[in-house]
Amino acid sequence: MGKFKLSISMSLDGYVAGPDQSEKDGLGIGGEQLHDWVVPLKAFREGHGEEGGEVNASTPIAEGILGNVGAVVMGRNMFGGGPGPWADDTWKGWWGDNPPYHSPVFVLTHHTREPLEMQGGTTFHFVTDGIESALEQARSAAGEKDVSLGGGADVTQQYLAAGLLDEIVVSIVPVFLGSGARLFDNLGDATPRLEQAEAIEAPGVTHIRYARVAEPR
Amino acid sequence: MGKFKLSISMSLDGYVAGPDQSEKDGLGIGGEQLHDWVVPLKAFREGHGEEGGEVNASTPIAEGILGNVGAVVMGRNMFGGGPGPWADDTWKGWWGDNPPYHSPVFVLTHHTREPLEMQGGTTFHFVTDGIESALEQARSAAGEKDVSLGGGADVTQQYLAAGLLDEIVVSIVPVFLGSGARLFDNLGDATPRLEQAEAIEAPGVTHIRYARVAEPR
Repeated sequence: MGKFKLSISMSLDGYVAGPDQSEKDGLGIGGEQLHDWVVPLKAFREGHGEEGGEVNASTPIAEGILGNVGAVVMGRNMFGGGPGPWADDTWKGWWGDNPPYHSPVFVLTHHTREPLEMQGGTTFHFVTDGIESALEQARSAAGEKDVSLGGGADVTQQYLAAGLLDEIVVSIVPVFLGSGARLFDNLGDATPRLEQAEAIEAPGVTHIRYARVAEPR
Repeated sequence: MGKFKLSISMSLDGYVAGPDQSEKDGLGIGGEQLHDWVVPLKAFREGHGEEGGEVNASTPIAEGILGNVGAVVMGRNMFGGGPGPWADDTWKGWWGDNPPYHSPVFVLTHHTREPLEMQGGTTFHFVTDGIESALEQARSAAGEKDVSLGGGADVTQQYLAAGLLDEIVVSIVPVFLGSGARLFDNLGDATPRLEQAEAIEAPGVTHIRYARVAEPR
């Protein structure tokens, strides 16, 4: 069985999205700065069907986000912001006809909907019976490969509190968003125990990889 | 003129102290874990008059905290927690008779008090007329050397918002404190513009050095 892993960009003040997420591709106001390190990379552009791009110390991280990934789990905000688009079953996500996932994507929601098959191997499945069910379905679809948690903050907090993530890569970006969605919030007493596995200095970002400590505190 | 710099340990969820700071040496419940990386180091032990200790990738950071420092600025909580000790003018800080600063320390407070001379070159001066005055007095005392901001969160936020810090080293520790004092909070619209200067992977901690971008955004 593969790992259940998360790779996410976070501002120095702890946000993974700015305010008004529904307004701007789910990243909120100012949130696009969180991805300034990844967008110019060859590894990112290839995943989006584009040529060229940079290779630098961030490349292994960008490659790892969807590398060896057999399925993806994501929250409803990540698939489609605010109540506006989501209320409409013609909404197909932020990524156009050929999303960069190229694998089954399990979207956690309270809204029942038929699976949505896109180009390039991405099919969105809508899961209404909770995070454990979504992970189970994703693991089953992924086989021996990893399952990637696609965000956003709400769903990530739920998986963290449940202690289900095997690996987290936090890419810390030197910007302040001031408000929005904080990644490590609402964990209650169920704080996961992590150990630092690796840190990588890259242009304009530091990537830190954490592994779950097997024995709960 | 030297730099005005801050070196501070932060939990992965953004706290520089846990809850109930008055209870536990100003670090709050669980907060002592933030210093697990520094306490075993030779560089730390020497500053506290003790022998032995480890040398590892964190050593240059520990040496830099008080290296080339001619004066220190700190907040009232850092000097003495809660209203209990502070209300009593016999309170001499958390550090015993020979504090590890060995230089003038300017404590921001609303409470007038005569300077307090300790052993080993540390004198606590109590500044009641605001952060800019404290920095000015510290710079004057430091001469060509740096001024170090000793914390805690409240005062650090004020200096960040005012854009007065030249350099910040954040040491990110893989623990979750869940509540307490968050470093990068209450910045309002006055978010400082920083650039990442360096990242260092060390045992159980990642140190990231940020420099202020000269031109405000």
